[in-house]
Amino acid sequence: MTTIGWDGDAIVLIDQTRLPGEVVNLRITTVAGLIDAIKRLAVRGAPALGVAGALGVALAARTGESIEPLAAARPTAVNLAWGVREAALAADPLKRALEIREEDIRACREMGERGADLLAAYGATRVMTICNTGALATVERGTALGVIQTMHERGALAEAIALETRPLLQGARLTTWELQKMGAPFRLVVDSAGPFLLARGAADAVVVGADRIAANGDTANKIGSYMLALGAHRAGVPFVVVAPETTVDPRTPGGGDIEIEDRGSAEVTALPGVATYNPAFDVTPAELITAIVTERRVVRPSRGETLVS
Amino acid sequence: MTTIGWDGDAIVLIDQTRLPGEVVNLRITTVAGLIDAIKRLAVRGAPALGVAGALGVALAARTGESIEPLAAARPTAVNLAWGVREAALAADPLKRALEIREEDIRACREMGERGADLLAAYGATRVMTICNTGALATVERGTALGVIQTMHERGALAEAIALETRPLLQGARLTTWELQKMGAPFRLVVDSAGPFLLARGAADAVVVGADRIAANGDTANKIGSYMLALGAHRAGVPFVVVAPETTVDPRTPGGGDIEIEDRGSAEVTALPGVATYNPAFDVTPAELITAIVTERRVVRPSRGETLVS
Repeated sequence: MTTIGWDGDAIVLIDQTRLPGEVVNLRITTVAGLIDAIKRLAVRGAPALGVAGALGVALAARTGESIEPLAAARPTAVNLAWGVREAALAADPLKRALEIREEDIRACREMGERGADLLAAYGATRVMTICNTGALATVERGTALGVIQTMHERGALAEAIALETRPLLQGARLTTWELQKMGAPFRLVVDSAGPFLLARGAADAVVVGADRIAANGDTANKIGSYMLALGAHRAGVPFVVVAPETTVDPRTPGGGDIEIEDRGSAEVTALPGVATYNPAFDVTPAELITAIVTERRVVRPSRGETLVS
Repeated sequence: MTTIGWDGDAIVLIDQTRLPGEVVNLRITTVAGLIDAIKRLAVRGAPALGVAGALGVALAARTGESIEPLAAARPTAVNLAWGVREAALAADPLKRALEIREEDIRACREMGERGADLLAAYGATRVMTICNTGALATVERGTALGVIQTMHERGALAEAIALETRPLLQGARLTTWELQKMGAPFRLVVDSAGPFLLARGAADAVVVGADRIAANGDTANKIGSYMLALGAHRAGVPFVVVAPETTVDPRTPGGGDIEIEDRGSAEVTALPGVATYNPAFDVTPAELITAIVTERRVVRPSRGETLVS
């Protein structure tokens, strides 16, 4: 399965709003169409957004559209703006975009190996995760869910516990779909059960992705990641972030500097006239993060190790 | 509004599965019908279940049905079995049931005053809560939401933050409906946002109800209460449990002895064949509970104060 690719004239991507009911590919030929797909989460996941941003620059070179609104289509994940910038600075944006796509495939494979090694060192075989950080969040394989997939392929996964991930249910819709496809043993739980299950010893580790990692190690990720970090900390189990180096943003000093996208009330079940606050992400402070796994290193923020020197 | 009452021949209760769409009263004339209503959560909330259990004994006296399956219809909330026992031991079960109903109304009013006094002493005007602990969980007024209502009536409520409360959305369906009716200022958020909003200083206190309070102060309540206790602890804001004395169970030594009801996979969004674990409650350890407010006292478990001497 390929989440996002290029067919010679257009971006081709799986419409994730239709999953798990049906697998439908979208063909996107304009930057405006790509921005729409990004905003309504037809394509999502920080690494996939990086590739989408870069391929969008290739589209813009054909249509003459501006790339500025593309870079700003979603504010929290740094990869989108990074992908746009990388392609825009290249002599051949399409060539660079396709390189970024290949780099993502390689990076995910390496994160999977490195993360599975780390979890083996922790003795972890039962792993909790939130949101979707699998193939659907990247190009082919995934970050945190890529680690779980590698564990499964090694025969080292006793159980994955997937959180529903309200309000848009990326866990219940997308992660369970991927776990079923890979034949991995798993259970699905409501988000608020995560910390309690950790307290009851139901998982040996928590693994999550990241949308932006600040220079000091504070990490923005799907809303609910912070509560899992609190639960893991109290339960004494490792809390591990898995993300490519491109998610590390040296320009953002700390978590307080990360813009948190409020996706508005339509996504939250409500009576007419009910006010909501719908932050799509939260920030986990570095001291609650046992390890950050990238394609080339393992950094331990909770021991004071830093990402940016 | 009255959640549960007696019309001379039958139990009359609001069918909470139909809210907020429509307000429909059920007339229940058999214990079997009452057990069904309890199991599908047409009536719910620990204090309301206490009244329902007691009135069920009055029904059984007429129909000749056994009351044992009634006492066991839901295992976690102690009030149900307590209400059945109280009425069964009385010379006149109906009279005792109606007394319990009146006692609940009085107790809720007193909890509201006592809890609002305590929150005022903390300087708290912005309060976060989970599930529904209002009139719909009791007879007329509520426990934790009764405190919020009293704050609002005193002009001391700046904002309530209500959590959706997956999987059955008691917060989004029932609590927002009650808050709208009382004209209180509030916002609705997904469950997993609660701890992060506490970290960002969005609330001055957390107030929740209880389904069973063990002798050592450990408290079973709606799944998600524990994550809020962790979030409140880290943010340095009070975590307050509001429940009648009948929720204190001296026969349960600690949280580990409380049976946690697993309500099965149908309530959790899932693909066909997906295994779930759906604990309806969690347990917050006493040391994370700043105060327990009942109709006659304030106990501070986090300072080592005990409920049962």
